[in-house]
Amino acid sequence: MIADSDHDVVMSASRRARELTEPVLRAAVGRLGGALAGIGAYHFGWQSGDSFAAGKAIRPTLAVLAAEAVGGAPSDAVPAAAAAELVHNFSLIHDDIVDGDELRRGQPAVWKAYGVPAAILIGDALHSEAFGVLLGGSGPNTGAAAAERLAAAMREMAIGQVEDIRFTERPWAGEHAVRIAEYEVMAVAKTGALLGFSASAGALLAGADDAVAGCFDRLGRHLGLAFQCTDDVLGIWGDPTATGKPVFGDLREGKKTLPIIAALAAETPASSRLVALLDAGLRTDADLRLAAQLVEDAGGREFTEREAARHLTGVADCLASVPMPAEIRAGFEALGRSLIGRIR
Amino acid sequence: MIADSDHDVVMSASRRARELTEPVLRAAVGRLGGALAGIGAYHFGWQSGDSFAAGKAIRPTLAVLAAEAVGGAPSDAVPAAAAAELVHNFSLIHDDIVDGDELRRGQPAVWKAYGVPAAILIGDALHSEAFGVLLGGSGPNTGAAAAERLAAAMREMAIGQVEDIRFTERPWAGEHAVRIAEYEVMAVAKTGALLGFSASAGALLAGADDAVAGCFDRLGRHLGLAFQCTDDVLGIWGDPTATGKPVFGDLREGKKTLPIIAALAAETPASSRLVALLDAGLRTDADLRLAAQLVEDAGGREFTEREAARHLTGVADCLASVPMPAEIRAGFEALGRSLIGRIR
Repeated sequence: MIADSDHDVVMSASRRARELTEPVLRAAVGRLGGALAGIGAYHFGWQSGDSFAAGKAIRPTLAVLAAEAVGGAPSDAVPAAAAAELVHNFSLIHDDIVDGDELRRGQPAVWKAYGVPAAILIGDALHSEAFGVLLGGSGPNTGAAAAERLAAAMREMAIGQVEDIRFTERPWAGEHAVRIAEYEVMAVAKTGALLGFSASAGALLAGADDAVAGCFDRLGRHLGLAFQCTDDVLGIWGDPTATGKPVFGDLREGKKTLPIIAALAAETPASSRLVALLDAGLRTDADLRLAAQLVEDAGGREFTEREAARHLTGVADCLASVPMPAEIRAGFEALGRSLIGRIR
Repeated sequence: MIADSDHDVVMSASRRARELTEPVLRAAVGRLGGALAGIGAYHFGWQSGDSFAAGKAIRPTLAVLAAEAVGGAPSDAVPAAAAAELVHNFSLIHDDIVDGDELRRGQPAVWKAYGVPAAILIGDALHSEAFGVLLGGSGPNTGAAAAERLAAAMREMAIGQVEDIRFTERPWAGEHAVRIAEYEVMAVAKTGALLGFSASAGALLAGADDAVAGCFDRLGRHLGLAFQCTDDVLGIWGDPTATGKPVFGDLREGKKTLPIIAALAAETPASSRLVALLDAGLRTDADLRLAAQLVEDAGGREFTEREAARHLTGVADCLASVPMPAEIRAGFEALGRSLIGRIR
């Protein structure tokens, strides 16, 4: 469980980040004009008058904490926070088309509500706006350095997404099976790079040099991996009432996530039974239950939880290398614990 | 017809621009890694070992000419030229999904060859690379100013594309009909903004100030409109053996292009007959021939050709306001004439 104090610290930091970022997001979406602005407002859930308060706003929170860590004002980080949030949302909109996911945040995904062409175009527009908010600020130099980091992070994201899709075409076992190291490279690219951008760009905009920004980039990547490991555990053993996803969801979808890859790589007797079961196809609820048990017996769950903890240690190492106020350090630590706390 | 000397001048300028730009494009696509790089190479037609020599490379050509106009080296313009070409191609890939177009440059469009998910992802990756090539150069300041112009131009492109789609849902006549001014705003956004970026960013990277860059932005927009007007004329009356598109193509597809909008707005007897025919639907070849004749009788063709010429005058006005070497001015003029020369 997440300690109450962690929860309070994270909520307070994320509320501050959201309140600063949301006006910039609304202005960016508004600049797209009538039709696109309406679709954007639908996606962000603004039509009901609500803010995007439902989310943890982890990317804006990271950007703001990083700016504060290096002695800047929270507002320094806002272009980075808004850019990260625009990219995250553009990527959700396009991913939902790519994956055929029909629901997003409890409502029909943009492509279901407005059609694939509109979903492609609003995603493209948000993508450009991300660069627009970074480059349109008053400090062109730092904005440019941050935008260059964003372009690099987005290249990684695209490569990671394609890798993830290609994993589905590979066998469960044998020389072409997905290896643990390959999975982690993919996960860093797909999830970690944008978190790394959020933190490093927040620091840069607050005046940090490139070396310090690099520390925050690594911090964000470790957080991303810790988050992904946790998600992978929840994707099999998560409580559907808490995750909003079906029980054994990732097994049902045949996803090659870390617990499964690690279980198969362990080459235990349970690993061999798991390969046979996966190759035959998981047809019944009993198959799913057995597969989950075999992943656990082969050590896949424990390995993944240890990886999550290891990446939190990586976060701590990054924090140790940059002097910062104690309460900001505590904010980062609480954020990290809250990400993996979902499985503790 | 295009004068032979214009043709030679344009071909020589565009060859120079292509030779400088293509290595940067190939490197940018290569950085996307195995799967995406292969799809990118397919789209650009590099798999056969050919360059993208088939095209006129109008955007790189504009960027290089603008850099030379302000006293820079052709190579100064290369990041702008490559960014414009990456955006142009990303937008073709996504547009082909949006419009359901199955062919591009004589081969299956990316979404037909690799599927919609891959086409979305490669488009997104090229989109980010455009910012990457602008911001990754050695001159961060000018790169940032150019990238900010790119983000603004891409916002306009997205708005223009959505407007264009929404035009199809509007009636041919009455108070909700598409007006000439609305059409031109859409066409500037959809086509002109990126040409304006190409020219202005080429000038900026070669050291021009913002006012001069603004002149080149207007020049590009006028060229874009001249190009669009010409395309609209060819879309109805073009020779299929030259355009590669079916005769009366835009009428077949029910597109609301400038000749038709102008013909309907003219309120001549031919305009009234045209409305009735369009409302009833163009079912036969005889219907298409009659509709084309009525557009011409109502003055739609003449109006559009005059608009193309008027925008070339706009190009000349821009050229007159910036001192430049005579041969560079001649290059811009020849490029303009070659764009509308297709209908002369």
